[in-house]
Amino acid sequence: MLWSGLFRRLGGYGRVVVQRRGKGRYSAPAVRTPSLQQLARAADRFNLDLSQAELQEFQNYMKGTLESYQRVDQLVEPLPTVKWPRTPGWRPEPKENPHNAWYWRTEITGAPSGKLQGKTVAIKDNVAVAGVPMMDGSRVLEGYIPEYDATIVTRILDAGGIIKGKSVCEDLCMSGNSFTSATGPVLNAHDNTRSSSGSSSGSATLLALKEVDLAIGGDQGGSIRLPAAWSGVVGHKPTHGLVPYTGCVSMDITIDHVGPMARTVADTALMLEVLAGYDDGLDPRQSPNLTVPEYTSQLTGDLSGIRVGLLKEGFGQETSEADVDDMVREAAHKLTSAGATVEEVSVPLHYPDGTHIFNAVAIQGTMQTMMKGNGVGVGWKGFYPTSMVDAFTRGYNSRGNDMSAALKHVALLGEFLDENYGNRYYAKGQNLVRTLTKAYNEALDTHDVLIMPTIPFKPLKLPDEDASISEICHQALGSKEISLIHNTCPSNVTGHPGLSINAGFSQPGLPVGMMIVGRHFDDATVLKVAHAFEKIRDS
Amino acid sequence: MLWSGLFRRLGGYGRVVVQRRGKGRYSAPAVRTPSLQQLARAADRFNLDLSQAELQEFQNYMKGTLESYQRVDQLVEPLPTVKWPRTPGWRPEPKENPHNAWYWRTEITGAPSGKLQGKTVAIKDNVAVAGVPMMDGSRVLEGYIPEYDATIVTRILDAGGIIKGKSVCEDLCMSGNSFTSATGPVLNAHDNTRSSSGSSSGSATLLALKEVDLAIGGDQGGSIRLPAAWSGVVGHKPTHGLVPYTGCVSMDITIDHVGPMARTVADTALMLEVLAGYDDGLDPRQSPNLTVPEYTSQLTGDLSGIRVGLLKEGFGQETSEADVDDMVREAAHKLTSAGATVEEVSVPLHYPDGTHIFNAVAIQGTMQTMMKGNGVGVGWKGFYPTSMVDAFTRGYNSRGNDMSAALKHVALLGEFLDENYGNRYYAKGQNLVRTLTKAYNEALDTHDVLIMPTIPFKPLKLPDEDASISEICHQALGSKEISLIHNTCPSNVTGHPGLSINAGFSQPGLPVGMMIVGRHFDDATVLKVAHAFEKIRDS
Repeated sequence: MLWSGLFRRLGGYGRVVVQRRGKGRYSAPAVRTPSLQQLARAADRFNLDLSQAELQEFQNYMKGTLESYQRVDQLVEPLPTVKWPRTPGWRPEPKENPHNAWYWRTEITGAPSGKLQGKTVAIKDNVAVAGVPMMDGSRVLEGYIPEYDATIVTRILDAGGIIKGKSVCEDLCMSGNSFTSATGPVLNAHDNTRSSSGSSSGSATLLALKEVDLAIGGDQGGSIRLPAAWSGVVGHKPTHGLVPYTGCVSMDITIDHVGPMARTVADTALMLEVLAGYDDGLDPRQSPNLTVPEYTSQLTGDLSGIRVGLLKEGFGQETSEADVDDMVREAAHKLTSAGATVEEVSVPLHYPDGTHIFNAVAIQGTMQTMMKGNGVGVGWKGFYPTSMVDAFTRGYNSRGNDMSAALKHVALLGEFLDENYGNRYYAKGQNLVRTLTKAYNEALDTHDVLIMPTIPFKPLKLPDEDASISEICHQALGSKEISLIHNTCPSNVTGHPGLSINAGFSQPGLPVGMMIVGRHFDDATVLKVAHAFEKIRDS
Repeated sequence: MLWSGLFRRLGGYGRVVVQRRGKGRYSAPAVRTPSLQQLARAADRFNLDLSQAELQEFQNYMKGTLESYQRVDQLVEPLPTVKWPRTPGWRPEPKENPHNAWYWRTEITGAPSGKLQGKTVAIKDNVAVAGVPMMDGSRVLEGYIPEYDATIVTRILDAGGIIKGKSVCEDLCMSGNSFTSATGPVLNAHDNTRSSSGSSSGSATLLALKEVDLAIGGDQGGSIRLPAAWSGVVGHKPTHGLVPYTGCVSMDITIDHVGPMARTVADTALMLEVLAGYDDGLDPRQSPNLTVPEYTSQLTGDLSGIRVGLLKEGFGQETSEADVDDMVREAAHKLTSAGATVEEVSVPLHYPDGTHIFNAVAIQGTMQTMMKGNGVGVGWKGFYPTSMVDAFTRGYNSRGNDMSAALKHVALLGEFLDENYGNRYYAKGQNLVRTLTKAYNEALDTHDVLIMPTIPFKPLKLPDEDASISEICHQALGSKEISLIHNTCPSNVTGHPGLSINAGFSQPGLPVGMMIVGRHFDDATVLKVAHAFEKIRDS
């Protein structure tokens, strides 16, 4: 048959689709047979000395194995169903977005009634909303549009929430200050020369500005609690595994969390009721047999019998500000009026070792899972967003230079460690996480919650546009001098629930956050204590 | 103070131990500050274009972060307790080891009584026994001695088992035929010119030779069931997560299994009772709330009400031998005499797509977790054997060229895929695993177990010593022509329990294995059916 005849039979000169069978291919296969050069490069990575003839033998055998990849390419993979229709939305003009807290605006309505009926919600931009652009604060992912909803997005819409858009987050969420997003700095709602903290900078700011009722945050080192503290709102990092992470960008499975943010504890608790619960095997962070209590019904204001521990090592750190420490200590002591007992408790590993252990896990983990593993990694069962993997793969290859210095630091240090020490410090870090977890559990045996400042100091000024790499890293990732995450990051590795609530405002009118940490899967008591404090604070 | 005085104070000229404080170091730190060259190399891996001045800025900031690594190095990590004393044992002489099935001999006794009292046990050499050499069949790990017991080793000793040694396994368990171990080929007990299959080649052979009563096997693509089939013994791959994998070399967390092997189903069931159960958070493959039934008490021989499905796609494959198919079909039909109903059932995805889906997961997964991830990978909570991570890191760097061709193939293909396609096919493979699991679950809704040949053909001749790379890969990893794992590997990704039992011997006196696959965590029914068959077979 002549080519022209074949084309005609297939319907003209449009896109020719021919079923691929056998060996005859004239379009690119899913996976090409590697060239000998490519195999030589791969051999080099594994320190293998192979002759051309040997490489050729591997290449020949490989052709058979590659048929599996062609076939896997043909098979249709199951995606979570997208239930609620929407349009792609729009990128807001600067005048509609003076604090730079929205990445994208939408108007997605779900069920006509439900627990979140009529509540407006912002979704952090590391969480997929089908059909709506998602860049996770980064040029690396810019242009990506997921075709699936994160499970928590479906749950919000099923409960009657109205999704008003995607909130800005830091560049791939790798910053505790709000100036690394590719869309520009997020300005603090209380002082627009200052940082909102991060990485859920947009979500916290939108709540403080009263642009939405509720927001989703994500937290791998403090990223829900930190911006909640500096924006004066409530942010709750749930117990690890309580809320499904399905459909969100993973940094490292063991530290990934998403959770509710709101202006009141009642709204936070309500949202957690909607978000929490087992996701039917799609999220490896979860166990079956997860029970979700009715958090809202436990917000009684009565703390009789509740033993509050002021975590000694959470106060008086090298960079702690006295007014912050004092305000949080006073706030905690006010809980006695609701019936709680308040006393000091010590967990020596908390500071600074908690941060050292966290670093060992988070740096190499993020390099492997979020960076080399394209936001999903390997080695778990569940839903893998393949389109996101593709977007990351292409993005890292073509836009890597546009990443923030904070991400470059993680890439450089992670790769250096990997090449010279393998994953031995990640491994040791994970073993020490068990020691750290035990230390908190012992304190939590005798106390229902632990309290400390969320961040030991008040909101920082945003850095100059020409800040050096070193300054950017110091402010984004923290350091001895800027110890943003010392109090928050230990519970990312241990998985304990932690909530930040505004303890008050200190000179010059800047919010101070108080963090309440509870037992695994006892998020209810954390919320109950926070709610009792809120009542006292606002009365 | 003079040096000599310091040395004297510390006890002479022996090893000088000085507490490291501050900046003064005169011995190597845990992690050195990377040189600019090392950082440039790391930058290159991420396609980052950075000037020397920029690299220097990263280097400066990094020094602060590296303090976390020095501190993590100092902290003492928790190891599982080694309860039962032992000596290192010995490497047996060839005359004591004619089939090459022992790697190392020991004599470790545990509790004086218990379920396994007096039973002798061989431990596959990818499972750690403290103080005893472990090479996992590979020059890469040779010389390694773990300082921890795998949890299943402790459980065996607690139950009164006597550990007689480590059985040979294939080179890092990456072979379905028994000739890739660095200690030489394991000879089939029934015909020493033939392969025992693998990778638990030693365990199966030692059982067939009656050198031990029980053995531990490991199974990532069929490695318990395949050698059980070709050695004529019983091998049970438990439901994924039923038996703790703690302290064993991981290929990919989602396909890792260890389980019991024995000559009788009763012994297999007894051993499973001892091995199974939750490992207190040390193994990420497990969920809490795991209940372990008494398997032995259910071996009644009565199969009333049991519906057996002969898996259509497990028979009549391209390389199936008619005598094997016939023998397994007949064996299954004999179960009617115990009260079972037997009928054909179809799962179209089983063959060949099941293998394609498995390949997508297993190849890149193993490259990432066992190879680049040094036998542990990242992204999970639990016990990480740090000493094994070190041994692998050093071994891959210095002895990579001594790996079997099968492993080199996985390294080359995995790295090629990673560099060109990221982990998108791994991701898609995992999504398709959910489809495949559903397909089996549907067949298992109407049938209690599925039956098929374990391997579609009889034991192969061992290859010549001068076999080509291509021949080695064909035989070790399988291919269209040598479809060793088509029936076994799908349940590695889906996690269903599967047991191989000898269905009989075919000309010329070679064992044929029948595989029985059951529902998730219904290992009891699999064992019960196998036991009923054994009674009929032996009567």
